[in-house]
Amino acid sequence: MTKLTHLDKYGKAQMVDVSGKPATKREAVAKGSVFMKKDTIRLIQDNKISKGDVLGVARIAGIMAAKKTSELIPMCHPLNISSVNIDFEIDTKKNRIDIESRVKITGQTGVEMEALTAVTAAALTIYDMCKSADKGMIISDIMLIEKKGGKSGTFRR
Amino acid sequence: MTKLTHLDKYGKAQMVDVSGKPATKREAVAKGSVFMKKDTIRLIQDNKISKGDVLGVARIAGIMAAKKTSELIPMCHPLNISSVNIDFEIDTKKNRIDIESRVKITGQTGVEMEALTAVTAAALTIYDMCKSADKGMIISDIMLIEKKGGKSGTFRR
Amino acid sequence: MTKLTHLDKYGKAQMVDVSGKPATKREAVAKGSVFMKKDTIRLIQDNKISKGDVLGVARIAGIMAAKKTSELIPMCHPLNISSVNIDFEIDTKKNRIDIESRVKITGQTGVEMEALTAVTAAALTIYDMCKSADKGMIISDIMLIEKKGGKSGTFRR
Amino acid sequence: MTKLTHLDKYGKAQMVDVSGKPATKREAVAKGSVFMKKDTIRLIQDNKISKGDVLGVARIAGIMAAKKTSELIPMCHPLNISSVNIDFEIDTKKNRIDIESRVKITGQTGVEMEALTAVTAAALTIYDMCKSADKGMIISDIMLIEKKGGKSGTFRR
Amino acid sequence: MTKLTHLDKYGKAQMVDVSGKPATKREAVAKGSVFMKKDTIRLIQDNKISKGDVLGVARIAGIMAAKKTSELIPMCHPLNISSVNIDFEIDTKKNRIDIESRVKITGQTGVEMEALTAVTAAALTIYDMCKSADKGMIISDIMLIEKKGGKSGTFRR
Amino acid sequence: MTKLTHLDKYGKAQMVDVSGKPATKREAVAKGSVFMKKDTIRLIQDNKISKGDVLGVARIAGIMAAKKTSELIPMCHPLNISSVNIDFEIDTKKNRIDIESRVKITGQTGVEMEALTAVTAAALTIYDMCKSADKGMIISDIMLIEKKGGKSGTFRR
Repeated sequence: MTKLTHLDKYGKAQMVDVSGKPATKREAVAKGSVFMKKDTIRLIQDNKISKGDVLGVARIAGIMAAKKTSELIPMCHPLNISSVNIDFEIDTKKNRIDIESRVKITGQTGVEMEALTAVTAAALTIYDMCKSADKGMIISDIMLIEKKGGKSGTFRR
Repeated sequence: MTKLTHLDKYGKAQMVDVSGKPATKREAVAKGSVFMKKDTIRLIQDNKISKGDVLGVARIAGIMAAKKTSELIPMCHPLNISSVNIDFEIDTKKNRIDIESRVKITGQTGVEMEALTAVTAAALTIYDMCKSADKGMIISDIMLIEKKGGKSGTFRR
Repeated sequence: MTKLTHLDKYGKAQMVDVSGKPATKREAVAKGSVFMKKDTIRLIQDNKISKGDVLGVARIAGIMAAKKTSELIPMCHPLNISSVNIDFEIDTKKNRIDIESRVKITGQTGVEMEALTAVTAAALTIYDMCKSADKGMIISDIMLIEKKGGKSGTFRR
Repeated sequence: MTKLTHLDKYGKAQMVDVSGKPATKREAVAKGSVFMKKDTIRLIQDNKISKGDVLGVARIAGIMAAKKTSELIPMCHPLNISSVNIDFEIDTKKNRIDIESRVKITGQTGVEMEALTAVTAAALTIYDMCKSADKGMIISDIMLIEKKGGKSGTFRR
Repeated sequence: MTKLTHLDKYGKAQMVDVSGKPATKREAVAKGSVFMKKDTIRLIQDNKISKGDVLGVARIAGIMAAKKTSELIPMCHPLNISSVNIDFEIDTKKNRIDIESRVKITGQTGVEMEALTAVTAAALTIYDMCKSADKGMIISDIMLIEKKGGKSGTFRR
Repeated sequence: MTKLTHLDKYGKAQMVDVSGKPATKREAVAKGSVFMKKDTIRLIQDNKISKGDVLGVARIAGIMAAKKTSELIPMCHPLNISSVNIDFEIDTKKNRIDIESRVKITGQTGVEMEALTAVTAAALTIYDMCKSADKGMIISDIMLIEKKGGKSGTFRR
């Protein structure tokens, strides 16, 4: 029977005990998208080509947020992540920017929340950087793509 | 001509100067949804009815994250928000949980990023609390619903 | 009828709305004590007289913690406190160190939680600095002594 | 001869060197109490039974504060704690709420400060959630109950 | 007679009381330089021209650090800064990168520490980004250039 | 050919992957100086001898900042440092205070940024504590002195 491990048998929130687990190599990949007006896509592209900064700022926001995951998500373990990478793809047909993060660690628990948090912070930063031009942007399709390492094995969407 | 105010005329990132703006009452409402399996919805509901905690933890995560917005989004001003409220609605037909946040301030700049950050952190926390049962959950449709106060006037989706 | 303002009418946690309140001068004083072995008191005094540091470190910990109050207490408003002072008194008869904090602000809400947090962090730091000599220390009698300013008027213990 | 390890031989504050110590399983239990009026106990209980939230918020505050210990206590090592649990007991005869925390880690140093910080933050949060009804609450009897693992062996109160 | 306002009359550290001061517009400018090998300058320039990121990352680090000043400098007041700008100049003759920050606020106290912290964090980030190529870099000449607003009047270096 | 490891092959910022590296003992020493007026040196000394606090506060600021390095420097890995020591030397001939930090860890990556951050925060704190007497102080000569452990071997200035 499936259960929510962050609740104990009385339904109270807890940080799950991982003290007995071995430290193994783990990796997680997450994705998400920011939908916007065609003109907003163009503004980002224009800045990018000539001098540009929107996606550069969003990348750093995502990397730094991954390190803050356990401060944001109450039951997350503090972790010393080993690497974070964030990539953007501009889809001018669907007027959206796709964000992909990849996080690695050698540790006792997985890094899917770190990967999801990185994508989310990058998306919020794109919104913030562009909101003077477009308040109607939508952040969607934030999901775990892949998770490797640890006892529960590989997850692939 | 629309421009991205977080970039200066050379395209470099900057925190926009609000030192000359008056402190006025402002408010922002944001929304978002977490899509999940029917069984996961049920797990959350079961816990809620008897002793339950998933949404309680997510609410607190959202409120605390709203206070951390300027640490997460690089160009956001630090703000002393006056109130945060977060509401959840469980849609058992569409198998999703809808999240709505409302943030208020008397200040020199708006709180839409705080409202969006609150929704996002609540959504990530729901994912974290339920991921032992359902790794395929999707966070979507994060958007600004309303924004009041300040020079740029009211925005309503 | 008395109610808990950090819970809304449905019992859900909320950060109380202070956006309509005027910014006034406010002040709070809190106290607390750390009880320890006579030898531990002496160790602290010896260090203090010749070169000493335990209470100096505890004072800074208390001041810095006051600034972090809204990160620690979920429903606390972020505040720009105007001043913090922390004083210690060594009671060699009762083998305890008394801690008093005084916090001021010109703002929309009171600073009693900041004063209590300052005392608490100073007490925990004394424990940490001395725990190699005395693990049995007890932190007690943390309480609000005085609160001035704001609509609810003056509170004095 | 007993000495304070957080002071070097000249009495200056230092973070003790643990780089040569092996990583072992460690555990600490701490306790504390919040004394309040009978009516305040009842308010907390009423909320708890029907919909309630005070202790739920305090539990999360305690868990999140345990993760922040090294940011609050100047000489504490940053640690990746493996688990945190917090329990409450309402003592309606003595009009107090007892708080117990249990923290675990596989690491180079103990987690007694994390356990004490968790209890303290939970207590402060109970105070904050109830202070509109009762400003006279007292936080007392914060102490280490048990400590296991590491070179110095087991401590039991 | 000049005195150190962050020490009280007994020499104890304190956060100076600014609760009685009016909120006025204030501004501070600070500078600093990172000295490095000619090759390292060239590496930064090469990256800048084609795709480059070193100074972009350093700018964001500086802006975000300005917001963290009161968490780093124990007696600094928490402040809601109104704007931060950071500029770099590459001096290929002296093999150094000059950093200038400008911080503004409408508040009760000045922002010189915020300006100095912004310069410092930007300099440390340049070091971090380039240290795989040049561990001998030196950060120097960090100083306040200008300070305007507030009772003590204008300071100009 | 030397390259900047914090930029990937496309010039985008990344946190370098250290997940495959073994955890070894590492150590870094950094230095820096604060230049000031003769009178300011004397003020610090006067306070130090009788009751004094400036360097005591700066030491704690440096130790606490070392623990925050990965929050300040965007591409730094979060690390559980094992020890930090900070020493000051007052040079009354050159009217400057020299700061030296030593940081240790058993980990997958070095701690030179932690040592440099500790020196820098201590220097900024000295500036803050003395700025009411001397706004013209200059922070200079911040540099890595030694680095031991890890694959790249020993660096000595």
